[in-house]
Amino acid sequence: MIFERIKSEGLAHLSYFVGSGNEAIVIDPRRDCQIYFDIARREGMKIKYIFETHRNEDYVIGSLELKELTDAEIYHGKGVDFKYGIFVSDGQEFNFGSMKLTALHTPGHTDESMSYALTYPESGKAPLMVFTGDALFVGDVGRTDLYGPEEIPRMAANLYESIFNKILPLGDGVILCPAHGAGSLCGGAISKREYSTLGLERIQNPALQRTDKEEFIKFKLEEKLEFPPYFKKMEQYNLQGPPLLKGLPVPELLFPKEFVKEMEKGAMVVDTRMPHSFGGAHIKGSYGIWLKGLPYYAGWVLPYDKPILLVLEEKDQLETAVSYLVRIGYDSIAGFLNGGISSWYMKALPVESLNLISVQSLKDKIEKNEEMVILDVRRDEEWEKGHIEGARHVYVGHLEENLDKVPRNSPIIVYCDSSRRSNIAASILKKKGYDMVYNVLGSMTAWKNAGYKVVK
Amino acid sequence: MIFERIKSEGLAHLSYFVGSGNEAIVIDPRRDCQIYFDIARREGMKIKYIFETHRNEDYVIGSLELKELTDAEIYHGKGVDFKYGIFVSDGQEFNFGSMKLTALHTPGHTDESMSYALTYPESGKAPLMVFTGDALFVGDVGRTDLYGPEEIPRMAANLYESIFNKILPLGDGVILCPAHGAGSLCGGAISKREYSTLGLERIQNPALQRTDKEEFIKFKLEEKLEFPPYFKKMEQYNLQGPPLLKGLPVPELLFPKEFVKEMEKGAMVVDTRMPHSFGGAHIKGSYGIWLKGLPYYAGWVLPYDKPILLVLEEKDQLETAVSYLVRIGYDSIAGFLNGGISSWYMKALPVESLNLISVQSLKDKIEKNEEMVILDVRRDEEWEKGHIEGARHVYVGHLEENLDKVPRNSPIIVYCDSSRRSNIAASILKKKGYDMVYNVLGSMTAWKNAGYKVVK
Amino acid sequence: MIFERIKSEGLAHLSYFVGSGNEAIVIDPRRDCQIYFDIARREGMKIKYIFETHRNEDYVIGSLELKELTDAEIYHGKGVDFKYGIFVSDGQEFNFGSMKLTALHTPGHTDESMSYALTYPESGKAPLMVFTGDALFVGDVGRTDLYGPEEIPRMAANLYESIFNKILPLGDGVILCPAHGAGSLCGGAISKREYSTLGLERIQNPALQRTDKEEFIKFKLEEKLEFPPYFKKMEQYNLQGPPLLKGLPVPELLFPKEFVKEMEKGAMVVDTRMPHSFGGAHIKGSYGIWLKGLPYYAGWVLPYDKPILLVLEEKDQLETAVSYLVRIGYDSIAGFLNGGISSWYMKALPVESLNLISVQSLKDKIEKNEEMVILDVRRDEEWEKGHIEGARHVYVGHLEENLDKVPRNSPIIVYCDSSRRSNIAASILKKKGYDMVYNVLGSMTAWKNAGYKVVK
Amino acid sequence: MIFERIKSEGLAHLSYFVGSGNEAIVIDPRRDCQIYFDIARREGMKIKYIFETHRNEDYVIGSLELKELTDAEIYHGKGVDFKYGIFVSDGQEFNFGSMKLTALHTPGHTDESMSYALTYPESGKAPLMVFTGDALFVGDVGRTDLYGPEEIPRMAANLYESIFNKILPLGDGVILCPAHGAGSLCGGAISKREYSTLGLERIQNPALQRTDKEEFIKFKLEEKLEFPPYFKKMEQYNLQGPPLLKGLPVPELLFPKEFVKEMEKGAMVVDTRMPHSFGGAHIKGSYGIWLKGLPYYAGWVLPYDKPILLVLEEKDQLETAVSYLVRIGYDSIAGFLNGGISSWYMKALPVESLNLISVQSLKDKIEKNEEMVILDVRRDEEWEKGHIEGARHVYVGHLEENLDKVPRNSPIIVYCDSSRRSNIAASILKKKGYDMVYNVLGSMTAWKNAGYKVVK
Repeated sequence: MIFERIKSEGLAHLSYFVGSGNEAIVIDPRRDCQIYFDIARREGMKIKYIFETHRNEDYVIGSLELKELTDAEIYHGKGVDFKYGIFVSDGQEFNFGSMKLTALHTPGHTDESMSYALTYPESGKAPLMVFTGDALFVGDVGRTDLYGPEEIPRMAANLYESIFNKILPLGDGVILCPAHGAGSLCGGAISKREYSTLGLERIQNPALQRTDKEEFIKFKLEEKLEFPPYFKKMEQYNLQGPPLLKGLPVPELLFPKEFVKEMEKGAMVVDTRMPHSFGGAHIKGSYGIWLKGLPYYAGWVLPYDKPILLVLEEKDQLETAVSYLVRIGYDSIAGFLNGGISSWYMKALPVESLNLISVQSLKDKIEKNEEMVILDVRRDEEWEKGHIEGARHVYVGHLEENLDKVPRNSPIIVYCDSSRRSNIAASILKKKGYDMVYNVLGSMTAWKNAGYKVVK
Repeated sequence: MIFERIKSEGLAHLSYFVGSGNEAIVIDPRRDCQIYFDIARREGMKIKYIFETHRNEDYVIGSLELKELTDAEIYHGKGVDFKYGIFVSDGQEFNFGSMKLTALHTPGHTDESMSYALTYPESGKAPLMVFTGDALFVGDVGRTDLYGPEEIPRMAANLYESIFNKILPLGDGVILCPAHGAGSLCGGAISKREYSTLGLERIQNPALQRTDKEEFIKFKLEEKLEFPPYFKKMEQYNLQGPPLLKGLPVPELLFPKEFVKEMEKGAMVVDTRMPHSFGGAHIKGSYGIWLKGLPYYAGWVLPYDKPILLVLEEKDQLETAVSYLVRIGYDSIAGFLNGGISSWYMKALPVESLNLISVQSLKDKIEKNEEMVILDVRRDEEWEKGHIEGARHVYVGHLEENLDKVPRNSPIIVYCDSSRRSNIAASILKKKGYDMVYNVLGSMTAWKNAGYKVVK
Repeated sequence: MIFERIKSEGLAHLSYFVGSGNEAIVIDPRRDCQIYFDIARREGMKIKYIFETHRNEDYVIGSLELKELTDAEIYHGKGVDFKYGIFVSDGQEFNFGSMKLTALHTPGHTDESMSYALTYPESGKAPLMVFTGDALFVGDVGRTDLYGPEEIPRMAANLYESIFNKILPLGDGVILCPAHGAGSLCGGAISKREYSTLGLERIQNPALQRTDKEEFIKFKLEEKLEFPPYFKKMEQYNLQGPPLLKGLPVPELLFPKEFVKEMEKGAMVVDTRMPHSFGGAHIKGSYGIWLKGLPYYAGWVLPYDKPILLVLEEKDQLETAVSYLVRIGYDSIAGFLNGGISSWYMKALPVESLNLISVQSLKDKIEKNEEMVILDVRRDEEWEKGHIEGARHVYVGHLEENLDKVPRNSPIIVYCDSSRRSNIAASILKKKGYDMVYNVLGSMTAWKNAGYKVVK
Repeated sequence: MIFERIKSEGLAHLSYFVGSGNEAIVIDPRRDCQIYFDIARREGMKIKYIFETHRNEDYVIGSLELKELTDAEIYHGKGVDFKYGIFVSDGQEFNFGSMKLTALHTPGHTDESMSYALTYPESGKAPLMVFTGDALFVGDVGRTDLYGPEEIPRMAANLYESIFNKILPLGDGVILCPAHGAGSLCGGAISKREYSTLGLERIQNPALQRTDKEEFIKFKLEEKLEFPPYFKKMEQYNLQGPPLLKGLPVPELLFPKEFVKEMEKGAMVVDTRMPHSFGGAHIKGSYGIWLKGLPYYAGWVLPYDKPILLVLEEKDQLETAVSYLVRIGYDSIAGFLNGGISSWYMKALPVESLNLISVQSLKDKIEKNEEMVILDVRRDEEWEKGHIEGARHVYVGHLEENLDKVPRNSPIIVYCDSSRRSNIAASILKKKGYDMVYNVLGSMTAWKNAGYKVVK
């Protein structure tokens, strides 16, 4: 038996490769799917089936891409008008090698959500693992608000039934294989623990302590989760079947002059360097989204109708940046700046910088009562747990449509928890014409480490 | 949380790296231990503790080697006179990052055997995983015969207590992390399933169905397992602490003439090619142990007091061969043949070949009643499940001391299940002066696939 | 300045990447052309021009493939009806970065053959390097017999002019960059030295010692070179422009049953293992061409109209085998045998073996006057330099159409210089129904190393 | 024949591996010498000889290190009191495989300097290549000032004789293999062309146009080259034989708290990030030397008696940084900052920043006549070719001992040609207590690209 958990950073997306004998299956493949093919080759196996747990809303599913490479069949749940793949029924069984996979209809997160229980008939009937998609996570359950607030009661009731009457009854000893780990937008409180079993979840998962159905529904009604704008695009892609890439796009290497030309034609510049480097010098008008933040934050701030131009710290980060972008459907990548930001300023092309300030300096400014606006761009729940006194709050993902809350006539001091999201926010403000923008190095983490006061 | 299972092929040895925050632990490291160091580097963690579940008998433990690289402390159980490391007590707790590890004394396989339960206090008190060493495997329990047959009742009773009263009570939802997978000599019936939980084992593990202590002891008394000669060496090494390698040995590249010189000085030739290639042509007097069989079979047939000379199919297999050998304490590797067997026969140096015959030819010979001895070199239980009519049986691991059972005056047809172990056996026979030796291609597997008769 | 010589093993084909500043050129790219693209990326350069020295006859040119990746322009000589690319004139200059390349018409090997002289104007007018294609090699000059024997005088006269009046006058200090190294079929006596200058060639190249034109032509008229059947295919490809691959083909992994099916549909089996391994056991009817011999010998023995099935020693040799095949236009690769030959014989599918004999045994057989035919399959000039007494001679590349020279009623002992080409020959004989075929391990090399007699 | 040129970036040091048959030689190996061993392994060769062209002054020679790995013999010239290796005589010959190497005494750069001519006797007596060490470069000749200004006439006369009477007579067609490429301190005007022959140098090398001995000596007397302080250390090392490393040092991963402790114990912080990133935020008191500048500039600014602490942009640059440091003898590397500069500011530890200004802003400041000191830190000859009006000049390598030339009471605007060396200079000024320090992004390159005025 071969079992591999493939984690896509940033999205905290988990997909799975399970092989037995000469045959293998993949659950919820990502779009840059060569990795599953390579495992299969290494093991001398053929991928026979691809299973989708549901129509994903937070990334582009790679099923069609993988089918193109392997000729495996794609299966997913009924009730959504998928334009590709085969519908699977509750209870349907699939054999590969010595293993058996049984499909379970487990609606709640979406109506067509499926779980898949894996058994090894040679040792007995008890399932070994269950692939729960976005129904059940380590430490949390799937969100039930995707169809709108008015549908939450129905969805939460479905989810309750799916978890308590279908999944948990599989047995305490079943290993839990969810579609996401901590950091995903598909659940608010997924544990960093990352490994679990149904038994552990039954006794430790906070949501599963709501064993009364009404209480469970109430709990879900109270949940507030962000809904980034790119979800709509993902849903549409994953319904129709996304465009086939046949390998990762290979963006063109552009010299500064060519880069300028693409900018003039309307391409957006995305600079994936860290805040200290982006702050030092960057191309005027560029978005500053650090590399590992790309899979999560690109979808909040970048439109889909313009090509992307990349500025990287190191040339060898190109493939990572490209894979992060295509995972969420940004397929049009016009090129990357050859030689990075250095080549740009060597040509005397216009650069900007951000004011990077330490928490000590910020403290100082506050004590001196300097005129400024302190802007906290973290999520609501982070803000609510404590913030710097006097700060205003706009989540970075909503900043562009809430600029009215950010005055233009005074210095803006932006912070988050680390200076990475505040770097995105600061780059947006600069792009929108704000000129006195500061990013707080280390932000709330440094602020607390310095022992400074936090208010609620 | 970072969790990695490192599997050493051949030995089916499983070691574990668990990290949380900036700190990590390693359980039962192997001797070529750079891999743990590299994971720690990649994750920006420090290895704080190394835990041994018991004094291993089937491979050289890498704790001292890893301590040399990291300065981590080594812990193991009491009751054995270890010359290194720190003794750990039942119930002792260790914290690293946000995780906690609790030591459990679980004797039975050996007296000082420890298990280690991992909890994540933030989510609750229930353990997430348990590292059971050779106490509990997927589908089997540890062998209890290492101290001799007369000790089995005491050891089995201890193991019963350890499993039923210490390990299983941790809860059905605990993920099982044993020290071995299928193919190990430390348990006879470890499942190929490879993943499990205490809950699954409780209901499916054949040994754990013996819930009555006496019945369990009786079950263990009936168990017959091989005891390869190299176990003694491993036990001695793992008690004293093995010699430090500080990196893998780098065997010298030897031209045929130099190779001959080393042979003349007494080095043994080990040829790691597959049976079809070894059979075609090999150096007179060499052992034919295919590469992946090296970690398991070298310890059965090679003495420890002579240097080893390697003949490889491909030059890039050298590092694998070397790591396989040092894992079981063969540190003296005099060199490898530059250019492989081709360079040998290009020099007109003496080669031998084995007769490779198909199952069809063997059938033919049998039907024609040709004079020959058919020799089955598989394990006892394989033999007992069915063999070719008229065959004799000597396990490959015992062949060298049982040559009196193999007549010298007639052709010897050797088979196993695949022709790999029969290749080892055939090479031993040739070395011992037998000259009409045949290896059956595909052996019992092909025999059955051809639909030929098997008797018990 | 970036200068890289890319050598394609087997064909001994040399291509070149030269970069300066932001721009680069490639000369005579091979078909698996990702390597040039990767160098350009690594150096932050764009490939501006692709130059062909002539319509190659011994491999498929990669110009179109590389143009697809880079948009570089392709240039080649006039006088051949190329269906792609741009014609270049004698004396035409190309600038890239700080370098300049000047085209020189240097016919003789073919009519449209071009050389290209590289200068670095900043240091002076003297050329630094010259890319001579198949006009001038290290230690030899290009063959002049491609248009048929009757054209040799004209071609040789042209070549004389090209070398003595165009290339050599560039200066003794010019570094020579030919299209082939030792082992190529495009010249008979290319030196293993591999590096040279015009000055060195002027005084050391045996062909260039014929400074009298008539003498030079006479010298060329005496030259006898093999003309493998695949040359015709290459010429046709390189005239029309070969089919675009867009990356290497990825052959399907086939289980034995599927492999059999493809064989039944007419695919040829090519086994790339070494003679000792192929000899031990192989699929009935397969061609045995060792991996590194593939780029050279496949074109001699394999037809172009049947798909190829591969049997490899190690799975990781697949990409090498595929690149070797597509370099000479074998694009239709139906799959490779999963698990190699072992998986075949484990299924009890029909295998064959070759008798592998040592030179000692052969000597013995000769002395005992055993009935047999000894067959030397080396090239004419190798045969002429000395062979085993009593042997017959048929070059391996011509064996299939000369089977009438090989009697069917006696054992055939095949040898070459190493047992690799004799393995090919032996596999052809077996395929053609010969049943008593022997391959001599180490062949002539071992024979000589053993000190046995050689006759002329 | 195997020929590989191994270039060590930064130092522009060239070493060579030449192999023939089973034997190989290495000329002027670098200290991280695994690369030569790996080539030899790949080719199935043994390194038989190591040749040093002279006692190098600009890097630590790797001969002893390589001998440790291979048992090859080390050879170098007479006249210097080497504590290891064997002295070689003028005219001494060495055979390896089919090649021959002849030693030539070619003093001038140093007294014991040797060149080595490579011939391939099978093709003739004319040498194929010559390894000239620091006697003759592409476009330049070796410096003759190492023994002090008063010795220049003698050294230059010797060099004249070596080049004109020993090296050039080898023939125009000999390929030149010098010990350095462009960018080395061992010659002032080495060409970027990088490839050459004696013939080309004879007609194009500016120094070789001084065919009159007196004129040549005069030319050398006029030459002004920097003499970095670390040369003394290198000379001492290369005389005694440097300490054996037996593999690259593996610096410890340090968390910020541990890093602080090492700093307090006296370790120096070296930050290898690019100017825009270093400028954004860095540890107070750190040296800012960009990664690729390390092999060249570390020796100018870092003392040898303090351990080094590294701050890297990306973790995977560690090995590069370490190899760059040990090549020039900085063996004591206390550790690297885990998580880079981010982890530092997340802990609210003290950071500093540099003011990064564009050339446009600088122009502006100049036009507004702002009070400031503009400091050009380029080499003398760069300064002399043109600089910004009103600037002062101190070479970055001499800055620390010339601080009296840099006033403390006004803003200091530092520039070089790219902002990399000015970053080093700026970091030194900050370290020395200057607080208003600016680095000009793109520096002179950008200044010129912007079309601004340059004065001489």
